[in-house]
Amino acid sequence: MTRTLGVCYYPEHWPESQWAVDAAQMKATGLTWVRIGEFAWSLMEPTPGTYDWDWLDRAVETLGNAGLKVVMGTPTATPPRWLVDSMPDMLPVDAQGRTRGFGSRRHYDFSHMGYRDACRRIATAMGERYGRNPHVAAWQIDNEYDCHDTTLSYSGAAKQGFQDWLAQKYQSTDALNRAWGNIFWSMQYDTFDQIELPNLTVTEPNPAHVLDFRRYSSDQVAAFNRVQVDALRPLTDTPLIHNYMGRTLTFDHFKVGADLDIASWDSYPIGFLSDRIEGTTKEKQTYLRQGHPDNQAFHHDLYRAVGNGRLWVMEQQPGPVNWAPYNPAPLPGMARLWAWEAFAHGAEAVCYFRWRQAPFAQEQMHAGLLRPDSEPAPALGEAAQVAAEIAAMPDLDHATGSAALIFDYESAWAWDTQPQGADFDMFRLAFAAYRALRRAGLSVDILPPHTGDLSAYKLVLAPGLMTISDNLRAALATYEGIALIGPRSDLKTRDMAIPVPMGPSLPDTDVTVTLTESLPPSDKIKLQGGGRFRHWFEHLDGTAPVHLSTKSGQPAIMGGDHLRYLAGWPDDATFDGIIGGLCDAAGIATLRLPDGLRVRDTATTRFFFNYGPKPVTWKDTIIPAAGVHWEAL
Amino acid sequence: MTRTLGVCYYPEHWPESQWAVDAAQMKATGLTWVRIGEFAWSLMEPTPGTYDWDWLDRAVETLGNAGLKVVMGTPTATPPRWLVDSMPDMLPVDAQGRTRGFGSRRHYDFSHMGYRDACRRIATAMGERYGRNPHVAAWQIDNEYDCHDTTLSYSGAAKQGFQDWLAQKYQSTDALNRAWGNIFWSMQYDTFDQIELPNLTVTEPNPAHVLDFRRYSSDQVAAFNRVQVDALRPLTDTPLIHNYMGRTLTFDHFKVGADLDIASWDSYPIGFLSDRIEGTTKEKQTYLRQGHPDNQAFHHDLYRAVGNGRLWVMEQQPGPVNWAPYNPAPLPGMARLWAWEAFAHGAEAVCYFRWRQAPFAQEQMHAGLLRPDSEPAPALGEAAQVAAEIAAMPDLDHATGSAALIFDYESAWAWDTQPQGADFDMFRLAFAAYRALRRAGLSVDILPPHTGDLSAYKLVLAPGLMTISDNLRAALATYEGIALIGPRSDLKTRDMAIPVPMGPSLPDTDVTVTLTESLPPSDKIKLQGGGRFRHWFEHLDGTAPVHLSTKSGQPAIMGGDHLRYLAGWPDDATFDGIIGGLCDAAGIATLRLPDGLRVRDTATTRFFFNYGPKPVTWKDTIIPAAGVHWEAL
Amino acid sequence: MTRTLGVCYYPEHWPESQWAVDAAQMKATGLTWVRIGEFAWSLMEPTPGTYDWDWLDRAVETLGNAGLKVVMGTPTATPPRWLVDSMPDMLPVDAQGRTRGFGSRRHYDFSHMGYRDACRRIATAMGERYGRNPHVAAWQIDNEYDCHDTTLSYSGAAKQGFQDWLAQKYQSTDALNRAWGNIFWSMQYDTFDQIELPNLTVTEPNPAHVLDFRRYSSDQVAAFNRVQVDALRPLTDTPLIHNYMGRTLTFDHFKVGADLDIASWDSYPIGFLSDRIEGTTKEKQTYLRQGHPDNQAFHHDLYRAVGNGRLWVMEQQPGPVNWAPYNPAPLPGMARLWAWEAFAHGAEAVCYFRWRQAPFAQEQMHAGLLRPDSEPAPALGEAAQVAAEIAAMPDLDHATGSAALIFDYESAWAWDTQPQGADFDMFRLAFAAYRALRRAGLSVDILPPHTGDLSAYKLVLAPGLMTISDNLRAALATYEGIALIGPRSDLKTRDMAIPVPMGPSLPDTDVTVTLTESLPPSDKIKLQGGGRFRHWFEHLDGTAPVHLSTKSGQPAIMGGDHLRYLAGWPDDATFDGIIGGLCDAAGIATLRLPDGLRVRDTATTRFFFNYGPKPVTWKDTIIPAAGVHWEAL
Repeated sequence: MTRTLGVCYYPEHWPESQWAVDAAQMKATGLTWVRIGEFAWSLMEPTPGTYDWDWLDRAVETLGNAGLKVVMGTPTATPPRWLVDSMPDMLPVDAQGRTRGFGSRRHYDFSHMGYRDACRRIATAMGERYGRNPHVAAWQIDNEYDCHDTTLSYSGAAKQGFQDWLAQKYQSTDALNRAWGNIFWSMQYDTFDQIELPNLTVTEPNPAHVLDFRRYSSDQVAAFNRVQVDALRPLTDTPLIHNYMGRTLTFDHFKVGADLDIASWDSYPIGFLSDRIEGTTKEKQTYLRQGHPDNQAFHHDLYRAVGNGRLWVMEQQPGPVNWAPYNPAPLPGMARLWAWEAFAHGAEAVCYFRWRQAPFAQEQMHAGLLRPDSEPAPALGEAAQVAAEIAAMPDLDHATGSAALIFDYESAWAWDTQPQGADFDMFRLAFAAYRALRRAGLSVDILPPHTGDLSAYKLVLAPGLMTISDNLRAALATYEGIALIGPRSDLKTRDMAIPVPMGPSLPDTDVTVTLTESLPPSDKIKLQGGGRFRHWFEHLDGTAPVHLSTKSGQPAIMGGDHLRYLAGWPDDATFDGIIGGLCDAAGIATLRLPDGLRVRDTATTRFFFNYGPKPVTWKDTIIPAAGVHWEAL
Repeated sequence: MTRTLGVCYYPEHWPESQWAVDAAQMKATGLTWVRIGEFAWSLMEPTPGTYDWDWLDRAVETLGNAGLKVVMGTPTATPPRWLVDSMPDMLPVDAQGRTRGFGSRRHYDFSHMGYRDACRRIATAMGERYGRNPHVAAWQIDNEYDCHDTTLSYSGAAKQGFQDWLAQKYQSTDALNRAWGNIFWSMQYDTFDQIELPNLTVTEPNPAHVLDFRRYSSDQVAAFNRVQVDALRPLTDTPLIHNYMGRTLTFDHFKVGADLDIASWDSYPIGFLSDRIEGTTKEKQTYLRQGHPDNQAFHHDLYRAVGNGRLWVMEQQPGPVNWAPYNPAPLPGMARLWAWEAFAHGAEAVCYFRWRQAPFAQEQMHAGLLRPDSEPAPALGEAAQVAAEIAAMPDLDHATGSAALIFDYESAWAWDTQPQGADFDMFRLAFAAYRALRRAGLSVDILPPHTGDLSAYKLVLAPGLMTISDNLRAALATYEGIALIGPRSDLKTRDMAIPVPMGPSLPDTDVTVTLTESLPPSDKIKLQGGGRFRHWFEHLDGTAPVHLSTKSGQPAIMGGDHLRYLAGWPDDATFDGIIGGLCDAAGIATLRLPDGLRVRDTATTRFFFNYGPKPVTWKDTIIPAAGVHWEAL
Repeated sequence: MTRTLGVCYYPEHWPESQWAVDAAQMKATGLTWVRIGEFAWSLMEPTPGTYDWDWLDRAVETLGNAGLKVVMGTPTATPPRWLVDSMPDMLPVDAQGRTRGFGSRRHYDFSHMGYRDACRRIATAMGERYGRNPHVAAWQIDNEYDCHDTTLSYSGAAKQGFQDWLAQKYQSTDALNRAWGNIFWSMQYDTFDQIELPNLTVTEPNPAHVLDFRRYSSDQVAAFNRVQVDALRPLTDTPLIHNYMGRTLTFDHFKVGADLDIASWDSYPIGFLSDRIEGTTKEKQTYLRQGHPDNQAFHHDLYRAVGNGRLWVMEQQPGPVNWAPYNPAPLPGMARLWAWEAFAHGAEAVCYFRWRQAPFAQEQMHAGLLRPDSEPAPALGEAAQVAAEIAAMPDLDHATGSAALIFDYESAWAWDTQPQGADFDMFRLAFAAYRALRRAGLSVDILPPHTGDLSAYKLVLAPGLMTISDNLRAALATYEGIALIGPRSDLKTRDMAIPVPMGPSLPDTDVTVTLTESLPPSDKIKLQGGGRFRHWFEHLDGTAPVHLSTKSGQPAIMGGDHLRYLAGWPDDATFDGIIGGLCDAAGIATLRLPDGLRVRDTATTRFFFNYGPKPVTWKDTIIPAAGVHWEAL
């Protein structure tokens, strides 16, 4: 597969005289793609119902004539003021009951039917205008769903929609009351319109209530997206894409991804390290200018699954951003490393964000490939280098990983609703497992929870799955590799209750979680052989063989040759030991990698990425900080 | 006095076929009491005015026939949805002005007269049905007043009620303006209906305004409780009880307790250690699975006073709970230790919460005596052991303690309103004093602030009393033991002003607090002999003898042989020294206890409780971790 | 110039029989000034339109007859209840949309025209009554603008006013949309009444939108103040004063100061150390009872500039206050030291707050010169000592400092709006620069950003100026000393955008900031010679000479002989080195001062202040803790 580079561009921000100059320089840099349009509704439709396409026609023409391919974005993340004025109840409402107003972006409620109509209208108009334009080679729908915590809204529209959704799901309040266990605190409802959104209750609402609201809210994102998919499909043959964000778990990306052709995401390694990745101060210092060495890989693998194998990076950090608590500059070379890492994980395209740093408005401190004065910023040269390297590189075909990790959004909502320990978080748990696999040098595939075939993998991890789907249970029943299930897996019904008999219900594996403990950061469970669990520990019972025990003699891993249950959350060193043992048992070769070095295999090539702040030596090769090295497999 | 065990049970959560099985197993475990009913309003009165008692009749009959005694709970902590719909203004409002909605529990405003009527109605109906039922041997009114911060509400009902209460108290706004000092910032009122609740002011409201609102709010809890007392009294001869919570100081428990027959409380040692007891990381680690070694004792002694000598533990933690930040499992033996400790402190009954872990709704992760699948949870065997031990134990009569601590809820509101130092807290101060007494091996009685007789005690501590009541002052005037008053005692008028002459006004003791200092955690006041004050230091003046000085020569303790004033907040080691000296002077024998070991004397028996994580040796006896040891006195 | 002492007094708090006694004791203490009246609106005008001046007439007469001069305060910080009831929309609204109610003080919205009218009316009435009273020798308007975060209000009045202000400024929404860059996220407005206040947006609002709201809000403070200035000017010939607070940057004090005759401020050294000055735990411990050794000096110098050379301390902390997180007592001697330091920095008068500690209402725990029982508090004797020392001291004439610091309020709003690094704060940066100058023993003048003449100074620092004004740029072009500009200076247009060409635009100095980095606390940029930048680092480009480099070879200071640009935020030791080098180059003598010792020169006298907790030796003099030493220059 060929790999391509691109960039995000806002012709409306610059004098028209600049467009051709910019386009030529993009081309000269070796870029293929240019994404435009996604915030420009107020220019496309300056007054209600009156479209102005002329400027956009000329922009597409200019870019296309320069040899670039356009990704056209629908502008529905930024409804114009006049649209909000026409239906003020389209604004979202936060959990404290405050309306979230106009003046930035994403000021809409996914549940609002009037706004969905408006989106259908603008998407249709754009599709009619550009769906067959030869320069427009892909579409992006909306921008960064959930960014700024916008999936959940506590508006009137959401309440009405939720009540309807519940009525559809349960058909009777009796059924709902039973499913939720509303008898618990006299919480029964007689009619669906009595059911409020689960915010502002005196103490925590019923977790089943919350989980259904989370499901409802996720469904609205998918439904909102589908409106535009349905509008555009008849009007274009090019791929439809959305650009997801990092560590965003509020909606089921697999469901949104099912309606699209490619999954893309916006990769801001340094911003994410600063604002959303757990780590010790030491780790944060070490990777300050590189980003977490596994975070990009995790999201590449996750979104490749969301995209059913097709992955882009739609926005790639090129320099300091404006939005993290602290915004240092990347090490020289990182803008290249990140791009190559994306390609190694299967990305077809990597688009830098953005072409030229905008000197005004919210993101004026966000670097681009060019400075505000049009001089080259540091990343421009790195982008050009990548472009040249791509041209010299044979095609990179994706290879199935040696291990798989099952990741479930619904479980993230379940544990967010009922963490039981203050620091229990689904992403954190899954990422801990992923990191251990990656530190062992494995290439990993991430699988959705409804996966029905594990046969391609010798090792499968399934941490934190609230339930195991029927598909997955069937696959596990005949699985010939080693699957490590847990902790906190298969311990709930889909109604967010504890099943009786109690879980997990693993095929042919007699193990039951009889009691659960969460642990404060100061505490740990010591294991035989020196490891330790942190955060979480489950007491196991059953007749299955014990593979690992705590120092006090309680089972830590139980199960048979193929299915094993992990009773706690291992710290990093312990996870390394466990994964090492499983790989040995499963016949997977592991690598002893120096700190900061990471590996990813394609079908033909092994890539090495040095995330560390110092050079490392791999066999005979010295890989500098921020260095990329590849060798044939 | 005989001691008994019990359990909390929710027949409405389980198939009716299970009831008799459960009852038989309760009986076989050695339980005497079963509490039911307190959240089941929606089943008792499924639609307005239509009662359904059949299921509850059968439940009582089944339990009673098994030989159990029923504690019947009124369900007023969980008004059903239809009731809220009939008067939506019954919902409480938080300090930010947000209505706290339906969907969990305690969604009512203590000030709402319509809701009080509804509570009178359901309590009366229950009393008529079960007041003379031979199986119903006690009543619980409502559940955990103030839980989830529900004492204070900023609703329209509260505002109206507060204005009326002020008009009753002051009779004229002139009197109120004078009492509050409203001249200070032109805050005078001309009419009572101008007076708003003291939230959402620009900066802090007048502390006298806040303190009166706190008094008003406390009075509403007592008045709310009295409605049900008055409804039930004519209908039953069995004791009326409320189950208080831990470290709950928002209402005057002595006033509520005066209307009831027994004070009970809900003892969650591990949950409370995690979420509401100050401690170093080391202490939190040491007692992670045991709870704070003095917290249960403090509350037993406090609520024994609230109950005028009659104490129960209505809910006893049996395993991990669901609601604390972290929820580890108790050490094996703790469910036994906690019960015996309660008995040693005078509890007549200890009821475990709950019989079987509910697999649904908010508390599904809260352990019971049985697992959700009806298998025994770890605490079941410990409960059975306690039951067997009770049977073998002679009666335990209460003995008056050797020292007393005076505890005043109103002072807690005063210092909460005007902490002066960010970490000044009434519970924390009183608990520090209590802990020092207990580390010295003393059995302590807690006394209300209106106490008029101290003659039973050789030593009395009175920390943090905003005023000394007339009763207490009279008792102090003739006291022949040693009373240590302060710090921060008798320094306010009841109008929350500084008295002139300035306090304290101790009989025949010339000592005045001339200046007050609060200290950040990094600072301390060094004392002669190596001790130190933390948090708080008062400059003393007067002619009374100085018993202890600071290193710089300021008085730290002043007074005569019987009444002394303590000028600061001693750290633990310093408090140990001070208490040791006072005990020597007062002729009280103290004990040198190993870390984690605690003692409590009944009339005939000395009990030892090992809260530490390791065995300790007491004389010749090795007491294991979580071990209980007793010997005749 | 003669120096005088005074005190704040509230005759309305005390029996009238006490007034003459108090006045005589004030006089005997050596006080000259007594400030009264500023919270007494409800007594001056007990019912709408009915004034009662009798009590105030007698109070002025009593004080004046004792030989005191009265500062008369207008009571507009505490509108009475009846006034609020007559126009409830005069109440301010916080950023969360909650109305901030009656019950404390400062409960008014600067934008409310009805309230401005009410203030004009009461000020006029007071002026007519007391403007020519021979005992009234100065006026204070309102009290502590912005205290309790009251500059910014999100009310309807503010919204209307802001829209009008924008319409005046921009004349057309097209111009506003261009200036703000509203094209960025389709944020264009068609009419001014579409523009909401910049709170409660989904994510951050346009920084240009916020900055204009900050400017508008600042302008309203000035306009509000001007209403009373205009009312009083015709009615009195005495100076008009406002008492500013510490570290208050929400309005442009230079603009308010331009309408007044004297700038005064309220100096609470220990309270401010506790609640608003950054510092290590060690620093906070060292100066716990003294206050930060540079904070008072900084504000004296700043407000002397705001007062165009005329400075008072209107409220001087005398003992523990009531409002900081922790409230220890000052070291003996500090109430004297603070007064002398104010005089050394040019203060004409220092008034202690307050005469007698009020035993009631919000500030009852705030010490005075007298205790609540009228006994002397520790500061009374120190005040008398200062009065005696003044009498023995020759006049102290102000001397121009050897270095100047330029301070700009608008930049504070800019960086508050767009910190880019979580701990970037204008005060903190300017204070860091100021502290370095002061540690070098320099006397500093603070200059407003529109300064057009720097010729009096050999050294000028200009950190954090969003833009350099035309005046200042002209002054820099011919400057013959050394000016150190930056970091983060001259990098914005006045529309809060990045200029192209990019800044800074220093005369004859080719240096450009090409890229900006913010750094987390754990990170630093190492410099040649051992220094380091923290928080902030800018990449410089250009042909100007490099004076200092980072260890990795990037420029850290660039420029010519006279104008240099500083690329980062030096830590304290690094700042000391930089300032030392600049002083050497500029021919300024520096001092090697022991820890805690500070210096300030008047025209004839050098003052030393020992802020440290221990005695220090200066040449042959031992200066005790809290000691003041002076010697002729």
